Amino acid sequence: MNSVKHSVVKRSVVKQYTLLELADFLQAELKGEPEYIVSGLSTLQDARPESLAFLANPAYAKYLPETQAGAVILSPDMAAGFAGNAIVMDNPYLGFARVSCLFDAGNGEQVGIHPSAVVAESATVDPQAWIGPNSVVEAGAEIAAGARILGSCYIGQHSCVGADTVLKANVTLYHGVTVGARCIIHAGAVLGSDGFGFAHANGEWIKIAQLGGVVIGNDVEIGANTAIDRGALGNTVIHDGVKLDNLIQIAHNVEIGRNTAIAGNVGISGSTKVGSGCTIAGGSSLAGHLTIADNVHIAGVAMITKSINGPGEWSSGGIGMMPVKEWRKNTVRFRQLDDMARRLKVLEKAFAKSE
Amino acid sequence: MNSVKHSVVKRSVVKQYTLLELADFLQAELKGEPEYIVSGLSTLQDARPESLAFLANPAYAKYLPETQAGAVILSPDMAAGFAGNAIVMDNPYLGFARVSCLFDAGNGEQVGIHPSAVVAESATVDPQAWIGPNSVVEAGAEIAAGARILGSCYIGQHSCVGADTVLKANVTLYHGVTVGARCIIHAGAVLGSDGFGFAHANGEWIKIAQLGGVVIGNDVEIGANTAIDRGALGNTVIHDGVKLDNLIQIAHNVEIGRNTAIAGNVGISGSTKVGSGCTIAGGSSLAGHLTIADNVHIAGVAMITKSINGPGEWSSGGIGMMPVKEWRKNTVRFRQLDDMARRLKVLEKAFAKSE
Amino acid sequence: MNSVKHSVVKRSVVKQYTLLELADFLQAELKGEPEYIVSGLSTLQDARPESLAFLANPAYAKYLPETQAGAVILSPDMAAGFAGNAIVMDNPYLGFARVSCLFDAGNGEQVGIHPSAVVAESATVDPQAWIGPNSVVEAGAEIAAGARILGSCYIGQHSCVGADTVLKANVTLYHGVTVGARCIIHAGAVLGSDGFGFAHANGEWIKIAQLGGVVIGNDVEIGANTAIDRGALGNTVIHDGVKLDNLIQIAHNVEIGRNTAIAGNVGISGSTKVGSGCTIAGGSSLAGHLTIADNVHIAGVAMITKSINGPGEWSSGGIGMMPVKEWRKNTVRFRQLDDMARRLKVLEKAFAKSE
Repeated sequence: MNSVKHSVVKRSVVKQYTLLELADFLQAELKGEPEYIVSGLSTLQDARPESLAFLANPAYAKYLPETQAGAVILSPDMAAGFAGNAIVMDNPYLGFARVSCLFDAGNGEQVGIHPSAVVAESATVDPQAWIGPNSVVEAGAEIAAGARILGSCYIGQHSCVGADTVLKANVTLYHGVTVGARCIIHAGAVLGSDGFGFAHANGEWIKIAQLGGVVIGNDVEIGANTAIDRGALGNTVIHDGVKLDNLIQIAHNVEIGRNTAIAGNVGISGSTKVGSGCTIAGGSSLAGHLTIADNVHIAGVAMITKSINGPGEWSSGGIGMMPVKEWRKNTVRFRQLDDMARRLKVLEKAFAKSE
Repeated sequence: MNSVKHSVVKRSVVKQYTLLELADFLQAELKGEPEYIVSGLSTLQDARPESLAFLANPAYAKYLPETQAGAVILSPDMAAGFAGNAIVMDNPYLGFARVSCLFDAGNGEQVGIHPSAVVAESATVDPQAWIGPNSVVEAGAEIAAGARILGSCYIGQHSCVGADTVLKANVTLYHGVTVGARCIIHAGAVLGSDGFGFAHANGEWIKIAQLGGVVIGNDVEIGANTAIDRGALGNTVIHDGVKLDNLIQIAHNVEIGRNTAIAGNVGISGSTKVGSGCTIAGGSSLAGHLTIADNVHIAGVAMITKSINGPGEWSSGGIGMMPVKEWRKNTVRFRQLDDMARRLKVLEKAFAKSE
Repeated sequence: MNSVKHSVVKRSVVKQYTLLELADFLQAELKGEPEYIVSGLSTLQDARPESLAFLANPAYAKYLPETQAGAVILSPDMAAGFAGNAIVMDNPYLGFARVSCLFDAGNGEQVGIHPSAVVAESATVDPQAWIGPNSVVEAGAEIAAGARILGSCYIGQHSCVGADTVLKANVTLYHGVTVGARCIIHAGAVLGSDGFGFAHANGEWIKIAQLGGVVIGNDVEIGANTAIDRGALGNTVIHDGVKLDNLIQIAHNVEIGRNTAIAGNVGISGSTKVGSGCTIAGGSSLAGHLTIADNVHIAGVAMITKSINGPGEWSSGGIGMMPVKEWRKNTVRFRQLDDMARRLKVLEKAFAKSE
């Protein structure tokens, strides 16, 4: 394409580790030079001598012999035939994940309250927390030790942010929102907005004040510009270990079970309960008042209109991609489908009779 | 699932009312103790003695005899057989809606301008309005009495916020945006962003500056992270009583009629006019330059590509949910649909001839 | 509908130009009075004597004879029969686009740093840039000449904003995000949020820190509340001239080629590469790890699950809109499609044999 591709993104800090430090951190076996220093992570193909690379997917094994990486995280099998430095463990992808966090520089290291932040007198901010520039912490809110509110965030009255949780910029927590420990909430996310509840009377919509809250467990990640409504009466609940991608809509009184992961642009309607260990691929919609069992996997752009009672893979939505011309033709036929089915039955009967 | 479910969300304020006060407010009949005090709303199942509950859906009537509620909003029929305190009216759900707003504590009660807010000299802020911390009100903007700008909002030049309208946190109004009275605009909503308009010349897109505005009527609610573009030349218009859920996209020069309600993740393309009294369920898409009549109801995840000339229910999109294996099989057949239809016709003709 | 439709949106500034100035600016021929002054743009139908109108679509030619416009941008053909003032050029729509930008008043004209903004000592802000109220510019960030950060924006560490680029309000740039020159980034947009990357181990999701950045080319426009994730290792790259509408999700390591335009509510999954000169209509979803060729055009609400190797138009998703009753009937038949196809084949064979 063009030159922009090759621009260099500046890093705020260069972090360096010896292979020994990394192997210790991963409780993995080290093959090679313990004092060799790496300062970043890379794919096998793009690696340089200062990089640590990894091989998780066998399809990339072909890049191993030629890699310039200073060291590679490898399974015992792959390490056996590799001459370079290796950190050896059964699940190299997990090793890559865990090491990646050591190299992250996104959250800064300040503690305290930036002078431009506005913190209500009755709010409690742990001295080991960081309240970044132009953030607002309203009355009665509690910010635990190690929490990091990067900047321009709004924490409503009596909301709580747990230990070591990070709020990136322009995050909004309404009043009465509780976030657990070690969560990451990305920019523009909104927690605690009113659920979409109205009574219909004389052709007008009468607002139902949303009196519940939002409760987020520990180790939850919430993507950029995702919205989670507060409950109408009870709470909207996101359990421990849930991962939500960007631009997701979670309606009032939804409950998402432990360790469920949901990709971008998904919408979940009111009062639906999603089990634990589920995955929902991007762009899917779930109707309201459903119960989805544990370990259900929903494909991309699916429209889920009924409860699912046991584990399994579900889909709907797409009819497969095709050139526009072909689609126009078949779409017309779809409307004739009921008619075709009846005609086929008539023909079958007539033929059977004629035989 | 797990313990997080039982966490208690703190409330900033406890509000209390006697049953007499509530019956008067609702202009409803009171059966029982006028001085009995309730301090919150609840479902029949979860109610405690200090709760006011309601029974709107007959499916929940089974919970009425056992409820712990201090009082219940009931229809005359149901009240007849109920021994406890009752507020009696024809539409208990409407009663619940109206009372719910009395218990809401989400908007605080301050008036004035927080010292951290930045208000331009030429802006007009009514002394009975609240401009919350770190909000910005640009030149020539007008904020009416009772308006509440919670925090970290941005009100562009010459924009107007009507009486008793609430902007939650991190809301953006561009320049030249007019919002009526008694509206609620949720966090992260953007009103007045540029419509997506470009002229194509020599393979490049030349921007068409969007010179129109956005006009929002009275009693409109706009959900979290919803975006409403300004008009290209004329205005984008949202009429009185419209309710928009979260993460909705309203393109330039769209017009939404009175009391229409639109659920989350809907997208409406440029210049489409939606009538009054319509409902559009979540995830639907409307193409541009359409006219949708009054009282049209569009199902979830529908793709509306043509104008709709009269009231009715419309759908498209989904082909129903099914296990992934079954879906793969039928999707392949969809591409053969035109071929199947032709073959069926050939067979019908041949059979008729052979008879 | 109702009276709100006729409200007048105030403009901050009235800009005026003579027809001679505008014809010179467009390098177009002027027919009529060079000193005639216009102060705004309009359609032919709504134009007043102080308006400049345009005729681009032949369907509107019927409005030309009766227009009240002070002048009209016309093609040579149309100008030949028009008695009023005309600016004559081959592509009147392009003329309209270019002139529209002269009348835009949305970005103000200040330079400098508003006293309420928080700019880190090690950040570099060109004296000809504007950092608006309550904005935050973190350490090591660079803001070029002519850049305009309107208000309440957050610019993370070591991020760069190019010359004459505009960030509207409440925009978030994470650390390590590079934006080129002459871009427009609308309110609520988030650039540089973490990609959705986790390793799965013992039923839990282990975060993969997202160590790459985001690189935005020149002349890019990014819509309100759109989210662009940073790369996992390399960068997410948006090339020169790309136009993104509102509420779009761009996952980690996506690459979008020059001059591609993408409408609202689209989601593009991780590592997918979209070519140059493409268009993607609203509501479409692209799976991950795809390659889409140059000059591909994808219809609305399409679900693209495979790479596309050459130019062309593609669709999927919708099966056409229809009344809900008809849809319910045909949807049931869809599940019988595979069965129908088999029965049709059986019947064909049996019939052929019987002949």
